[in-house]
Amino acid sequence: MSKTTSNSIHITKATQSKIDTVNFDDLQFGRVFTDHMFVCDFEDGQWQRPEIKPYGPMTIDPSARVFHYGQAVFEGMKAYKDNDGRVFLFRPDENFQRINKSSARMAIPEFPESYFFEGLETLLKLDSAWIKPGIGNSLYLRPFVIATEPAISASPAVTYRFMIICSPAKSYYSDAVKVIFAQKYSRSADGGVGFAKAAGNYGAQFYPTTLAQKRGYQQIIWTDANTHEYLEEAGTMNIFFRVGDKLITAPNNDRILDGVTRKSIIQLASDMGIACEVRRVSVQEIKDAAKNGELKEIFGAGTAAVVSPISAFEHDGQEYKMAMEDDSYAKIFKSRLLGIQHNEQDDTHGWRHEVV
Amino acid sequence: MSKTTSNSIHITKATQSKIDTVNFDDLQFGRVFTDHMFVCDFEDGQWQRPEIKPYGPMTIDPSARVFHYGQAVFEGMKAYKDNDGRVFLFRPDENFQRINKSSARMAIPEFPESYFFEGLETLLKLDSAWIKPGIGNSLYLRPFVIATEPAISASPAVTYRFMIICSPAKSYYSDAVKVIFAQKYSRSADGGVGFAKAAGNYGAQFYPTTLAQKRGYQQIIWTDANTHEYLEEAGTMNIFFRVGDKLITAPNNDRILDGVTRKSIIQLASDMGIACEVRRVSVQEIKDAAKNGELKEIFGAGTAAVVSPISAFEHDGQEYKMAMEDDSYAKIFKSRLLGIQHNEQDDTHGWRHEVV
Ligand SMILES: Cc1ncc(COP(=O)(O)O)c(C=O)c1O
Ligand SMILES: Cc1ncc(COP(=O)(O)O)c(C=O)c1O
Repeated sequence: MSKTTSNSIHITKATQSKIDTVNFDDLQFGRVFTDHMFVCDFEDGQWQRPEIKPYGPMTIDPSARVFHYGQAVFEGMKAYKDNDGRVFLFRPDENFQRINKSSARMAIPEFPESYFFEGLETLLKLDSAWIKPGIGNSLYLRPFVIATEPAISASPAVTYRFMIICSPAKSYYSDAVKVIFAQKYSRSADGGVGFAKAAGNYGAQFYPTTLAQKRGYQQIIWTDANTHEYLEEAGTMNIFFRVGDKLITAPNNDRILDGVTRKSIIQLASDMGIACEVRRVSVQEIKDAAKNGELKEIFGAGTAAVVSPISAFEHDGQEYKMAMEDDSYAKIFKSRLLGIQHNEQDDTHGWRHEVV
Repeated sequence: MSKTTSNSIHITKATQSKIDTVNFDDLQFGRVFTDHMFVCDFEDGQWQRPEIKPYGPMTIDPSARVFHYGQAVFEGMKAYKDNDGRVFLFRPDENFQRINKSSARMAIPEFPESYFFEGLETLLKLDSAWIKPGIGNSLYLRPFVIATEPAISASPAVTYRFMIICSPAKSYYSDAVKVIFAQKYSRSADGGVGFAKAAGNYGAQFYPTTLAQKRGYQQIIWTDANTHEYLEEAGTMNIFFRVGDKLITAPNNDRILDGVTRKSIIQLASDMGIACEVRRVSVQEIKDAAKNGELKEIFGAGTAAVVSPISAFEHDGQEYKMAMEDDSYAKIFKSRLLGIQHNEQDDTHGWRHEVV
């Protein structure tokens, strides 16, 4: 390993790349990691000098608060390569702001903007070979922060670790998914942490989702915890409903993640003259629309899955099938988003961020 | 380090005890750990052979699901020593059942009963010197399970680690605490994971609790997330209200941890002929009782704090002070519980479990 210093980040390069051992045509999401990772510790009240080093296991005390109290947040973003080998991020400022919003809610110190961007860009330059060009290919980036202080009292830690790890990816849900509208379990409450990418929000969904999967549904669309009458979002995607030619999506609140893909689709819809209502949407409204033929599409929107068409939903023991037309909004938005992300279409809103 | 095998647990003893470096008169909760820890990994669909080894840091992949999705649960229990050097646990079957209930909700495989008890008892025998006799002294035991699989897809892991770490303790809140009744933030929702000792439930409370602390209140008493009208529990304690000579505590449900101390106090109250109502208790009722002088006590009940008297509460910007009488129920229950736990009083319900 050779040690060099660049941009104040302390860099230790991997002696040999693992890239030749990876079959890029057969990638399972989130299982293979690139050669390097970014690490920055918070100690003595401040973020210390960041480091990039070979990806690998780390040493941590069993009493670290992250294990006991779930004091941890994360982000999910992607890097894309165009056919000229140029590398782009998509609206990374949104992820930067969101991780700090999540951190604030979890009593974790905010991370400096310059470290976040220098870390990402330096890492991407080192591991650029892992980003394959072509629509559908990307490098999934996972910034996250964990409470490392070795003390099991139930209060905020004084030491933390911020990391970025990178995993080459194809899109997450390759087939259309079937969903259940939640009627018993719930994801978050008003005044809770649902709007944050707090680690515990995700583990809490595994069991109900497993139950849904046993019945043939891959995902749950969460409803409000009080009444289960209003549709909110899926486990890792915001949700859009197309009724007639109009889109509807739930508003942001305490309980819903303010998704970057969601807000981009709302903007693209406006660009294309597609009406999009951001408002509460009830289970009853969607069932009625399904029955009278007005419900044309449901799709999920998120960085991992991009746009994921939903082929059926279940509620009260009844399954409602969707038509899955070829000229769906889901397809239009997906190809527009991928086109912008891969530098194949005009970026009218300045969403692409080139890594140079 | 010498390697021996006992009861199927693989034991590696510490070459030298750290106990002489510890000042038992000045213990901060959860910062000092004993010489050994218990470790058992779940792999290939089953719990592997357990191990006891010197307490120390462990190696884990940065992509381990616990860091990203908070798939983790824990327990809190204590070991006590009487003046003859006999060591006792208090209702450990309750903790065993509860950790598996928490695990089930978090899609974590349940842990075998024999491993749990053999692990605890073997560890306690090895580290028995760390348990000091005398009321107020104890060894806090922290069993916990974390998802270790190195893969960042949002679904249950296939590998886990169950551990027990031990920390010598005095009682947690030494002084009476002041609390705020929650009006904005919330701890859990119906259909959520509030009843489980899931890691993420705790980290989510840190920020609101920090805000309360800035205003001079150490803890929050959570209310129902929907209306904030009903009092539920504190961050690590169940709550009892004494109105006149009657006790009231909230019923268990999806949102509240089914505390061992709480259920023991309900039993002791019945033994002593103290009326205890287990029912919803509203903020308004407690404020009214405070105003008309009927509210005699509020106290928290939990393993760490045992019984913790509350000296004041705040709601709607107004502070209500409690009288803190010498003959309080809080004191009676605390000394009865400690008496049973330390083998100084009759154990009429068979709650003590001797470690032999
Ligand atoms: C709960 C939840 N909702 C929605 C999303 C989609 O957000 P984004 O489009 O920013 O990836 C995600 C994934 O990040 C998520 O975790
Ligand atoms: C949320 C919560 N409530 C109540 C309690 C008290 O439970 P127990 O008496 O079993 O320690 C605890 C602590 O374990 C807790 O974490």
